[in-house]
Amino acid sequence: MSALNVALIGYGFMGKAHSNAYAQVGHFFPDVRKVRRKVVCGRNRAGLEALAKAWEWEEIESDWRRVIERKDVDLVDICTPNYLHSEMAIAAAEAGKMVLCEKPLANNLAEAREMTEAVASVPNFVWFNYRRVPAVELARRFIEEGRLGRIYQYRAQYLQQWGPDPSRPRNWKMSKRTAGSGVNGDLNSHLVDMAMMLLGPIRELSATFETFLAKRPDPDNPGSTYPVDIDDAVLVQARFDNGALGSFEATRFATGFQNDNSFVVHGSRGMVEFHFEDMNRLVFADAGGDPDLRGRRTLLAPSPGPPGAPHYWKPGHPLGYEHTFISSLADFLAGVDAPEPAKPTFEDGLAVQRVLAAVEASALGRHWVETGL
Amino acid sequence: MSALNVALIGYGFMGKAHSNAYAQVGHFFPDVRKVRRKVVCGRNRAGLEALAKAWEWEEIESDWRRVIERKDVDLVDICTPNYLHSEMAIAAAEAGKMVLCEKPLANNLAEAREMTEAVASVPNFVWFNYRRVPAVELARRFIEEGRLGRIYQYRAQYLQQWGPDPSRPRNWKMSKRTAGSGVNGDLNSHLVDMAMMLLGPIRELSATFETFLAKRPDPDNPGSTYPVDIDDAVLVQARFDNGALGSFEATRFATGFQNDNSFVVHGSRGMVEFHFEDMNRLVFADAGGDPDLRGRRTLLAPSPGPPGAPHYWKPGHPLGYEHTFISSLADFLAGVDAPEPAKPTFEDGLAVQRVLAAVEASALGRHWVETGL
Amino acid sequence: MSALNVALIGYGFMGKAHSNAYAQVGHFFPDVRKVRRKVVCGRNRAGLEALAKAWEWEEIESDWRRVIERKDVDLVDICTPNYLHSEMAIAAAEAGKMVLCEKPLANNLAEAREMTEAVASVPNFVWFNYRRVPAVELARRFIEEGRLGRIYQYRAQYLQQWGPDPSRPRNWKMSKRTAGSGVNGDLNSHLVDMAMMLLGPIRELSATFETFLAKRPDPDNPGSTYPVDIDDAVLVQARFDNGALGSFEATRFATGFQNDNSFVVHGSRGMVEFHFEDMNRLVFADAGGDPDLRGRRTLLAPSPGPPGAPHYWKPGHPLGYEHTFISSLADFLAGVDAPEPAKPTFEDGLAVQRVLAAVEASALGRHWVETGL
Amino acid sequence: MSALNVALIGYGFMGKAHSNAYAQVGHFFPDVRKVRRKVVCGRNRAGLEALAKAWEWEEIESDWRRVIERKDVDLVDICTPNYLHSEMAIAAAEAGKMVLCEKPLANNLAEAREMTEAVASVPNFVWFNYRRVPAVELARRFIEEGRLGRIYQYRAQYLQQWGPDPSRPRNWKMSKRTAGSGVNGDLNSHLVDMAMMLLGPIRELSATFETFLAKRPDPDNPGSTYPVDIDDAVLVQARFDNGALGSFEATRFATGFQNDNSFVVHGSRGMVEFHFEDMNRLVFADAGGDPDLRGRRTLLAPSPGPPGAPHYWKPGHPLGYEHTFISSLADFLAGVDAPEPAKPTFEDGLAVQRVLAAVEASALGRHWVETGL
Repeated sequence: MSALNVALIGYGFMGKAHSNAYAQVGHFFPDVRKVRRKVVCGRNRAGLEALAKAWEWEEIESDWRRVIERKDVDLVDICTPNYLHSEMAIAAAEAGKMVLCEKPLANNLAEAREMTEAVASVPNFVWFNYRRVPAVELARRFIEEGRLGRIYQYRAQYLQQWGPDPSRPRNWKMSKRTAGSGVNGDLNSHLVDMAMMLLGPIRELSATFETFLAKRPDPDNPGSTYPVDIDDAVLVQARFDNGALGSFEATRFATGFQNDNSFVVHGSRGMVEFHFEDMNRLVFADAGGDPDLRGRRTLLAPSPGPPGAPHYWKPGHPLGYEHTFISSLADFLAGVDAPEPAKPTFEDGLAVQRVLAAVEASALGRHWVETGL
Repeated sequence: MSALNVALIGYGFMGKAHSNAYAQVGHFFPDVRKVRRKVVCGRNRAGLEALAKAWEWEEIESDWRRVIERKDVDLVDICTPNYLHSEMAIAAAEAGKMVLCEKPLANNLAEAREMTEAVASVPNFVWFNYRRVPAVELARRFIEEGRLGRIYQYRAQYLQQWGPDPSRPRNWKMSKRTAGSGVNGDLNSHLVDMAMMLLGPIRELSATFETFLAKRPDPDNPGSTYPVDIDDAVLVQARFDNGALGSFEATRFATGFQNDNSFVVHGSRGMVEFHFEDMNRLVFADAGGDPDLRGRRTLLAPSPGPPGAPHYWKPGHPLGYEHTFISSLADFLAGVDAPEPAKPTFEDGLAVQRVLAAVEASALGRHWVETGL
Repeated sequence: MSALNVALIGYGFMGKAHSNAYAQVGHFFPDVRKVRRKVVCGRNRAGLEALAKAWEWEEIESDWRRVIERKDVDLVDICTPNYLHSEMAIAAAEAGKMVLCEKPLANNLAEAREMTEAVASVPNFVWFNYRRVPAVELARRFIEEGRLGRIYQYRAQYLQQWGPDPSRPRNWKMSKRTAGSGVNGDLNSHLVDMAMMLLGPIRELSATFETFLAKRPDPDNPGSTYPVDIDDAVLVQARFDNGALGSFEATRFATGFQNDNSFVVHGSRGMVEFHFEDMNRLVFADAGGDPDLRGRRTLLAPSPGPPGAPHYWKPGHPLGYEHTFISSLADFLAGVDAPEPAKPTFEDGLAVQRVLAAVEASALGRHWVETGL
Repeated sequence: MSALNVALIGYGFMGKAHSNAYAQVGHFFPDVRKVRRKVVCGRNRAGLEALAKAWEWEEIESDWRRVIERKDVDLVDICTPNYLHSEMAIAAAEAGKMVLCEKPLANNLAEAREMTEAVASVPNFVWFNYRRVPAVELARRFIEEGRLGRIYQYRAQYLQQWGPDPSRPRNWKMSKRTAGSGVNGDLNSHLVDMAMMLLGPIRELSATFETFLAKRPDPDNPGSTYPVDIDDAVLVQARFDNGALGSFEATRFATGFQNDNSFVVHGSRGMVEFHFEDMNRLVFADAGGDPDLRGRRTLLAPSPGPPGAPHYWKPGHPLGYEHTFISSLADFLAGVDAPEPAKPTFEDGLAVQRVLAAVEASALGRHWVETGL
């Protein structure tokens, strides 16, 4: 099988994380299709060249449309600000390319619908990378195997703390036009994707938004401020189709926590708890068995069990952030030639977007909203 | 000053916790008014006698009205099921007794209002014991001193796990008639009291109730079930008067957690986190200072700092559950002779009851509710 | 059965802890012999009166010999500096009193031997209180039940941090004459007692002492220093009769740890770990069972299992430092009327003293020493 | 500057870890010399080919002497069993190659001396990879900056649990001939290197060895056993030149711990604690400052502070095991063209070997031994 030629659009933090995945996937997963770092695309020449040099991209390009038109590109990977996802993904799909897209899928539900229709005929994937943390995969397997029994409650939090920092540069994440929303799309999208992967569809929800700083100091214009039109924090109460009660919180104002993406699942037979700050561990409690031994236990994952683990290091040798991207890519590539594509596809990204839209409708309308899922 | 003669009504788990407080308060706090364990009152003769014997109550009595009528009783302490609080507290106040009452203050808001009016002229107190955990007191002091800066978010959880257990005896806590509510009054009342002590009044909220098991096996009638009319779990989104965003969860279905009463406060200058499972500790993070050192730190409380600590043991020697009751009582007794009574008084209990009523209204009506505070 | 009249000698921190035990034992353990706080003895009138008043001792006395001569005293409890234990214990035993003594039993092995002989005919007990932490009892039971299999290694640490503090008052613990040793007797004695309770006798050992500050500022004479003749830290390597390898460390120079008495036991089938800072918990790992689930788990003790737990509060309601003394006393009292006395007796205290003597001999001689146990 | 051509000898777990470092170093550290994965060498054809294919080594070779003779090889990296290090390193140095060698440097002190002499004229390096954990680097910096003050105590443990497993294949690590020792060289070497990097030379020590299973089941010959001539566990008491007291433990029989390489440093001004299981964190306690705030705090490293961190991901995005190798290599490569080579060199490896030899002498002779450092 010939190698797939990759075009990467975007060269920021995600551009680096994806570059690493393309560089490493063949080393740890020698049996999946080979990929070739063909061309990376972006508008800032210096940043683009630096990324291309460090990560050995063969070519650079400043016009994304030219990249998509190239015959020798098989796969287009979109790491741009959210508001650009839709146009690029649709164009890439129309050009017959495989399409991978960073999360959230789109700026809004309408765009997400259009994109999902457009990619129906090509392999597609959304980078909800946290699905591939081995401890999360272990949690998923426990639920599937029935180790937690009937699920009663699900509690998810994504806590960051950079919100109050006035020296923070103003960027595309701080504007509704370019980001679609604040923490709802940025962080809550991860929580929602993880929750629905683990428990299935969310049926209805009630949410509230908060913007703590309506105006922020503009680091580029000392002394002046700019108005903030996005959500700094979001709280969601939800009910899943399976009867479980859910609670979600995403915030950039959680002083004390740099990047804590966490969830807890309480079931009739057991509990699991995950924190990305402790990404190599899963906490588990058994509701049954010897009463003397019913504490919470910390499982080191990759333990001998979870599939995928043997691809990296031995048990007891921690993995890091970047492995979630390598594993995502490996699964996508394996899925290209398999009867079933790897998840999450654009369909899954669209389901998340429906929930995000319901969150926004509920927060603005101050009432419960059905997701339609 | 002569000793206060105490009448305790109730002889269950709380009856024991309060008996211990009366027995110990003079040992650790030799400067407050003395108390005398005069009479304990209840309807189950055997249980009553066992408690009286173990804890050296001078007399026992089966009719609570006779206890209240006694001239030689100065203080009436009510540890009965919630639905009895109102009648007893009002009668005791009318008889001129000091009145202490277990939480939640009443079965509903109307009762709580009537009780609070009735006790206006006598010393009164509600046993929200968790206020007196030294680590909680430390948190309160940090907020007061401004160490956390402007408060952005408050997150509280009270997690218990006995809900799913079918062998659990049917008791007064499982019926709306006798308990007023399920976890809302039982557990959420603690969360709300703590939150308002730390941050001030809650202005508005949106809540949802869940009853996971609509029918429960009746251990007293094998093979049959009884209908459950109380809430097994409650979720609340709230806004405080001070602009902070709050999130509350109370549940008896949190497999993996025996009795975890917790809160986290995120402010512009710092964060504190408390878990009753680790009651001798407070987690603190500083948003400022040396960037190298900005982690979460675990303070052992009683550290040298917090007031009250010297009354027990040296730093590094853990306190337990019971000390929260001893300290509550010591503060109440000190308040009897002070210009200001100790908190929480019935007024504070009434404020909590307002919030509980708003929670119920919101959960049933599925909309946001103002608390009126 | 008539109540036992208690005479307590000493009124410091231990005097308070023991007073509490005498006050509380009948409340939580109503079935053991009653005790009466008859007389407390000491040389500082003010301190003595304060303790007696707070803890309701009926009488005070300044001459310990007069206390021992009293006909109406049944039980003598010695909480004085170590160098006084021997003379007092022997006199009390000769007067036919029950004798309880704080740890370490004596200033040296010769004294400990003489004391143990002297008390042979009366009920006797050494206050190694940490044996009675419910989590420690759970660990003991696990080992006894074979849940850990063959024991390979034992690692114990007692970490305190007050050593470097120059403002620390000079007291009897800082002198070989009055304390016998530094951390060896003060802290290592606890480690050794716990280890031998759990694993049986220590056969041989190699130790080293360190005195970090040979002279200390004398807070009583500003500007001057006093020479230190005791050990600030001790390290021990040991072999147990059962073949296990042991490692002990006791120190007052462990910055960061207020009072962390800990042990870890590694066996062929499992592991337990205990830290007094988390005294309500025992960490357990199972070497067998489902490989997916082999993490370290945190058991909340008192869990439903451990004997003794029902005497205090429900699971999930933390106990504190003081309960170790109450349980010690309850067990001693139950043992007075039982076929077998409660442990640790003076015989057990003597065994610990043999190990402490071997530690000293090894540290001074710089070679391995047999304990003779 | 032209790329360095690398020859890797060995294709096991370390071969994979080093391959990854060669593949990744240029991506994260684009400014250091380029490396080219020229040839990998080993005796098992299938294993060798699999590694070469996955990690894109240009060539494979079965005879290590031929590899060393090649003109187009600039750098020889030795990942073979310990007993082969010496001959290979000397030959490579004599051929003028740069020499990198896995730890421990050699099977014994004599070999290590000879090797160190031989490589004196070429760039050389020992893979004590744990030095490059960002949290360890942070600890080193804290000590250097005086944040811990005078160091009193150092406590290091390397805990693994695979020892008791009878199904474990018999390999070169289980024989004195091929490994030189058991845990002393395998695990204790890491502890000693880390300790001396942080605190400077160890002056004297007292050690003990234990072999728990004198015969082990031979998985290759069911029903038969083979004799074990290596140490399963080692305990060391030590004194550093700077006056600190040290304690070391390395074991493969620590049920409950997969791979916990840890250390604690207690100083007059503060404490640090590190556990490889939590490799992204450093625990720190300040002995001074506000008494209210003197708890242990968990610093997430890479925090904004430690040098090297910006090369990977943003703070709050965990690194893993493999980054320690990438950073080691980056530092080595930077050192090749710098006035001072990166540490640890063979000289540092030799110093560790002196300590390991002293440990063995002490354990066999049962007395204290000077290291001669």
